[in-house]
Amino acid sequence: MDSLYSKHLENAVNEISKLPGIGKRSALRLALHLVKQDEASVSLLTDRINKLKSSLMYCRVCHNISDTEVCDICSNPKRNGRLICVVQDIRDVIAIENTGQYNGLYHVLGGVISPVEGIGIQQLTIRQLFDRVEAGNIDEVILALPATVEGDTTNFFIYKNIKDKVPSVTTIARGIGVGEELEYADEITLGRSILSRTNFDNSLKTR
Amino acid sequence: MDSLYSKHLENAVNEISKLPGIGKRSALRLALHLVKQDEASVSLLTDRINKLKSSLMYCRVCHNISDTEVCDICSNPKRNGRLICVVQDIRDVIAIENTGQYNGLYHVLGGVISPVEGIGIQQLTIRQLFDRVEAGNIDEVILALPATVEGDTTNFFIYKNIKDKVPSVTTIARGIGVGEELEYADEITLGRSILSRTNFDNSLKTR
Repeated sequence: MDSLYSKHLENAVNEISKLPGIGKRSALRLALHLVKQDEASVSLLTDRINKLKSSLMYCRVCHNISDTEVCDICSNPKRNGRLICVVQDIRDVIAIENTGQYNGLYHVLGGVISPVEGIGIQQLTIRQLFDRVEAGNIDEVILALPATVEGDTTNFFIYKNIKDKVPSVTTIARGIGVGEELEYADEITLGRSILSRTNFDNSLKTR
Repeated sequence: MDSLYSKHLENAVNEISKLPGIGKRSALRLALHLVKQDEASVSLLTDRINKLKSSLMYCRVCHNISDTEVCDICSNPKRNGRLICVVQDIRDVIAIENTGQYNGLYHVLGGVISPVEGIGIQQLTIRQLFDRVEAGNIDEVILALPATVEGDTTNFFIYKNIKDKVPSVTTIARGIGVGEELEYADEITLGRSILSRTNFDNSLKTR
């Protein structure tokens, strides 16, 4: 990027453009927007971001972001504590909660194993998942990680370590999305959906 | 947006999603990214944004963002001080400087007149432009505002007020872009480019 005629502007643009998906040009647009706002709204934004970093806590049980030591889901007596759904982050918890189809607990890994990005077992809450399984009283662990190489690697690593300690380890169904045309599905998804075909009787139940 | 299980996360997402072009979903993605960064990089980001608001200055002459009382362009003796190019904001200054075709000074309005957005003459540096013209020693004012209704309104308002006080008021040429196909140009642009046709001799000079 060319000179921006001001070190203050350049510094702010540099930091903003480090955010994912924001290039130098968008960063300049955002910086100029902030310059036009009153001081109170700008400091509200920066305070809230700082507080995010300094005050955020994680649920002691499932490691989801939470304001309490044990989150609302884990402490809800109406939920089935014998069921654990393993997800990458809070966005997946929100997505699954929105379906209204799940009543068990979660385990938030904080990512998936990715040697390329330097994310190994230590960076994730995999050991804590093993501890929950070791503690017993679990009927089923559902693996709901992304259908990527990293997701599959993580799935396999978890499966290998817990398969003898829990009655059932399952993974969410991969297949053709509801309302999706077969001709537009990629071959791997279509192939998997044929291999994992279910009884027509079963498919009626989930409608 | 659904509950985010944490007030701190919700507050940060709310403030981030007030930025232009950033919805709740992107704001959550950015917030979760920041949570994963170390404290030093997050506070560097927020410090730089705060400093932007508290320390930014504007050139006393052209009102562009600047770290000095008079900016590098206005204080450069090699530039033609009898030429003023009127633009909306610093991004247009950068774009015109990049062409290498302009050697005069600028006047940064800070926007265009837009009753819908509550932007009137008071919010812009239009009076200061009139003062520069009144002070004399200006040969030409070039209006380089966006080709929108608001841009045209602002152009016309400025033109009406300075036309008797400066030898020449011009506007940048509107037409078919270099390398653009005629069939893909919109009708208004194509129409204007026919009305503003230039001598072929002249067009050769600017190649």
